[in-house]
Amino acid sequence: MEKKGYIGILTSGGDASGMNATIRAITRSAICNGYKVKGIYRGYEGLIHDEIRELTSEDVSNIIQRGGTILKTARSKDFETPEGRQKAYEVMQKEEITALFVIGGNGSLTGARVFAQEHDDVVCIGLPGTIDNDLCGTDRTIGYDTALNTIVDCVDKIRDTATSHERIFFVEVMGRDAGFLAQNSAIASGAEAAIIPEDQTDKDQLEEFISRGFRKTKNSSIVIVTESATGKGAAYYADRVKKEYPQYDVRVTILGHLQRGGSPSAGDRILASRLGCASIQALMEGQRNVMIGIRNDKVVYVPIAEAIKQHKPIDNSLIDVLNELSI
Amino acid sequence: MEKKGYIGILTSGGDASGMNATIRAITRSAICNGYKVKGIYRGYEGLIHDEIRELTSEDVSNIIQRGGTILKTARSKDFETPEGRQKAYEVMQKEEITALFVIGGNGSLTGARVFAQEHDDVVCIGLPGTIDNDLCGTDRTIGYDTALNTIVDCVDKIRDTATSHERIFFVEVMGRDAGFLAQNSAIASGAEAAIIPEDQTDKDQLEEFISRGFRKTKNSSIVIVTESATGKGAAYYADRVKKEYPQYDVRVTILGHLQRGGSPSAGDRILASRLGCASIQALMEGQRNVMIGIRNDKVVYVPIAEAIKQHKPIDNSLIDVLNELSI
Amino acid sequence: MEKKGYIGILTSGGDASGMNATIRAITRSAICNGYKVKGIYRGYEGLIHDEIRELTSEDVSNIIQRGGTILKTARSKDFETPEGRQKAYEVMQKEEITALFVIGGNGSLTGARVFAQEHDDVVCIGLPGTIDNDLCGTDRTIGYDTALNTIVDCVDKIRDTATSHERIFFVEVMGRDAGFLAQNSAIASGAEAAIIPEDQTDKDQLEEFISRGFRKTKNSSIVIVTESATGKGAAYYADRVKKEYPQYDVRVTILGHLQRGGSPSAGDRILASRLGCASIQALMEGQRNVMIGIRNDKVVYVPIAEAIKQHKPIDNSLIDVLNELSI
Amino acid sequence: MEKKGYIGILTSGGDASGMNATIRAITRSAICNGYKVKGIYRGYEGLIHDEIRELTSEDVSNIIQRGGTILKTARSKDFETPEGRQKAYEVMQKEEITALFVIGGNGSLTGARVFAQEHDDVVCIGLPGTIDNDLCGTDRTIGYDTALNTIVDCVDKIRDTATSHERIFFVEVMGRDAGFLAQNSAIASGAEAAIIPEDQTDKDQLEEFISRGFRKTKNSSIVIVTESATGKGAAYYADRVKKEYPQYDVRVTILGHLQRGGSPSAGDRILASRLGCASIQALMEGQRNVMIGIRNDKVVYVPIAEAIKQHKPIDNSLIDVLNELSI
Repeated sequence: MEKKGYIGILTSGGDASGMNATIRAITRSAICNGYKVKGIYRGYEGLIHDEIRELTSEDVSNIIQRGGTILKTARSKDFETPEGRQKAYEVMQKEEITALFVIGGNGSLTGARVFAQEHDDVVCIGLPGTIDNDLCGTDRTIGYDTALNTIVDCVDKIRDTATSHERIFFVEVMGRDAGFLAQNSAIASGAEAAIIPEDQTDKDQLEEFISRGFRKTKNSSIVIVTESATGKGAAYYADRVKKEYPQYDVRVTILGHLQRGGSPSAGDRILASRLGCASIQALMEGQRNVMIGIRNDKVVYVPIAEAIKQHKPIDNSLIDVLNELSI
Repeated sequence: MEKKGYIGILTSGGDASGMNATIRAITRSAICNGYKVKGIYRGYEGLIHDEIRELTSEDVSNIIQRGGTILKTARSKDFETPEGRQKAYEVMQKEEITALFVIGGNGSLTGARVFAQEHDDVVCIGLPGTIDNDLCGTDRTIGYDTALNTIVDCVDKIRDTATSHERIFFVEVMGRDAGFLAQNSAIASGAEAAIIPEDQTDKDQLEEFISRGFRKTKNSSIVIVTESATGKGAAYYADRVKKEYPQYDVRVTILGHLQRGGSPSAGDRILASRLGCASIQALMEGQRNVMIGIRNDKVVYVPIAEAIKQHKPIDNSLIDVLNELSI
Repeated sequence: MEKKGYIGILTSGGDASGMNATIRAITRSAICNGYKVKGIYRGYEGLIHDEIRELTSEDVSNIIQRGGTILKTARSKDFETPEGRQKAYEVMQKEEITALFVIGGNGSLTGARVFAQEHDDVVCIGLPGTIDNDLCGTDRTIGYDTALNTIVDCVDKIRDTATSHERIFFVEVMGRDAGFLAQNSAIASGAEAAIIPEDQTDKDQLEEFISRGFRKTKNSSIVIVTESATGKGAAYYADRVKKEYPQYDVRVTILGHLQRGGSPSAGDRILASRLGCASIQALMEGQRNVMIGIRNDKVVYVPIAEAIKQHKPIDNSLIDVLNELSI
Repeated sequence: MEKKGYIGILTSGGDASGMNATIRAITRSAICNGYKVKGIYRGYEGLIHDEIRELTSEDVSNIIQRGGTILKTARSKDFETPEGRQKAYEVMQKEEITALFVIGGNGSLTGARVFAQEHDDVVCIGLPGTIDNDLCGTDRTIGYDTALNTIVDCVDKIRDTATSHERIFFVEVMGRDAGFLAQNSAIASGAEAAIIPEDQTDKDQLEEFISRGFRKTKNSSIVIVTESATGKGAAYYADRVKKEYPQYDVRVTILGHLQRGGSPSAGDRILASRLGCASIQALMEGQRNVMIGIRNDKVVYVPIAEAIKQHKPIDNSLIDVLNELSI
């Protein structure tokens, strides 16, 4: 029951742990259902430049546990132009790729959507691969749980030294404009506060934290801060405390790219496996231009347009949880 | 706004990672809301024998990341008798404990239910703490995600040696009569099969696995087997393969109690924190004899009677995922 | 300055973490010094059956962190016969392998020695790859530090549950007839005792442990037991305690093959890298039939005959350390 | 056989993983040999301000596996003055502390030495606790192996993302003016180069690295850089590459304080246990003002003056190992 043409898989944008598990799942489920598979290297860039080769079941053997992506990833300027996308379209024709599976975050899926709008006969299936967890239509994204565990593991270590020295640490985590990682890692690591971009109230989050009695009864304090495009990251808050509360011994740690790597957590591997299998199911059911997501522990198909269109909200009840537990 | 009497907390049955995070969350949320808290040591046994002391916010400081339970746990024969429970009731009166928070699995919550049925004025609140994930009414139990990650980490190591030697490993995991750990760790570790108690079909699960082409194209095979009260654990299947397929090099590993311990995963810490806070909320709302669970990522109150009454079903779609991906 | 012929590398016997780091180091150091390299698959078995292919610098890229061995390993019955070794010799001629690098433990190096004795023109260089640390002439073997850390990590988890339940655990670790892993993991995990094969006194090690006041002041006890070919492993001691001290709640965990796998520790990677480079140095210096070892943090060349001839002694001062610290 | 007076223990300077294991070992070995023990909180600062309480064997129970220091640590300005030290001396008299055990690095031992020089009757015993490994007279310091493993674990994660994106990462690690952590973590993580303060040649280490063919055949490059008091840390080198080689995609990660924390490695726990026991032995033998070290796997007593006086040299052969293996 060999199907016509090839399925093409690419990973795009920032890498996330669990991308390899996703590639494995799509590839094996595809082969299991009679498709042939090609791997596209370096994201859309490799699609444009025809860096493509067939993937067998063995090629994806023993990669479920590995961080990064065997297909590599990139951000492609060319694919943002109509000429670039036209080139990509021609390569797909040449390589006989009839369905394009894109594993990535917001930007990558936006690219897929524009591409599909321009070319009627292009079938795109998206899979949510990003540590930021900021895609609508899915409760979790692949890579988020691993990044969360990595952050918590790092903050546990920092807590050891913070407690020994009675210091305040501002720890900066990734998330772009989404506070999921900061909010949840703060709860999980027993941090004293999280500073997140979703909090758009007039209140100054640092003052809030200070006035909540910060360091009154505590030996040390850890504040998790979401990275910031506007300069209000961990260093900004640390500087303010140094100036306004010179009696405190303040330190900054920016966790950086180690948040992306590492062996995926069990949760991410299972999510990747389920979504990977479901994506082939979706293809067989005639779905197109959908992202495969998970909602209430059930697989769902979400129009890509919907997945990327708005800001996924933070669960406000978690703010209360953090406040109650950091007394 | 100090509330009358004390909240009593105990952990009972098999320990699970995240129990300490739960104790911390209940204690701090309680104090935050004007209650006083007592810790009961060694489960129902300590309730009967009055091994109880007050818990402050500091007492639960820096325990969110620790495995085990600072309150210790035990299985109590005495609490299974009316006399034992009467004794426990009298201790509660004496200690001015007006609400009993029980962190544990099926057996522990069953005890709580019987206790509450006998004593009208006893308020019990249950929290699902078990690595087996076998409580109805909650999507996940506290300790399950950590145990799953521990198993997967172990199987990753076993895969290294299995692949190097081209062997078949039967790895036995916990779960009592529930296959959640086996099923999900098999998917997450890229194992070739899972043998689970829920599969009640006539088919022989080992034959099924063999006939699916086991070791045809693979360098090594790993089969995850749920522990069995009836003797059909990993050793049973390994013996059968040795007899029926003497050409294979077979090994057995029984992971045992290391599955219970270790620092809790981010997921378990967040779950514990949320359910702990919600349990105080439930008390304030006048709830009694409910288990605090999570369903579709929302906190729910489940009558304890319902939580313990039936077997929580395995998601059958996961069986297909495992079969497709182990080709 | 291309050297004549190829260097052949094989891994043999039980796999140990760090074997890949060793393969990488030998390969790259060889290439760096003008040699060409061939990888021999499945140990001596693959040498006899000519399962051999060239290794480039890229082939060993990104493997330093991986457990197991990319060359696979096996125990070869055929190589124990003169005919088998003759066959191996002929394959070496055919493949133009002029020096054989053997990574393995006692048995593997014994094989190398016999082989070199039979064939004057065969150059063998041994590298100590075994988790048991039982090779003379080297302070540490590749894989030992990783296995030790894995065991300690497991016992930390078991301690969580042991303390919560106030139990005695007998934990069985590898080591064949050497107590290094048991002795040192007992110290590192804060276990109460280690039962090791080197203790040949008349005293019963269990009685010793019991009489030292076992469980007098302690909440839980963990005893590390070396695996035993004669049936005196963890299960044996647990059974005795159950019979002789029925008041104790006893459990057994046999760690098994997970001790071999996993990403190598920093220490093992550095050791593997140093010995790998030194082995090429040794070849260039005209050394033959030596094992490359480390003594007092300096690389040494040890005649293979010496490395395998006797039992490496345990440091008795460590027994005192364990006894003092488990009070 | 109770000994006169108390042994006092303090941890000082930057915290290092394994300090708790050291406190445990000194305390238990002391008690085992008839001494009584007091813990001094917050280093020399707590000695001056009499923040001292007795330690029992139970107080140090279950801490061998914990990062940080239960005695907390600090840097004390007051102890640098004769008045401060006089105050400390008086507190020692008052608390009946007859021997002072100092766990720390260069600065802490320098303090101990000055103190002992001023007060004839003060007995100081030093234990090398620092992640930097920069104390003479001991092959390894407590905390170094753990920090090394933490760094390597982080760089493994960064390698995942570096490889996926084909980037150059400059990763900054601790070490003050010692390159042990950078040098050895570079070898262990398969990094392309290490920039260390010991390299005092005229050659520019970055140019060296570039000219060695950097990124010619490699998908990604990781350079480990020792932190620098003079501003030549990771950011400095990254900026230079950005300017001089704009074609490369460069990133910086500064690992920061997470290098200090975390559960100690097996190696550090064993080292801490051995040195802790040996320090009591030294006291009983009448030693004073010595640091307890390890040399060639044997315990040694090193005059504190000698331990702190000079720069411990890097093993130059490791530079060659790194160069050969990063081809």
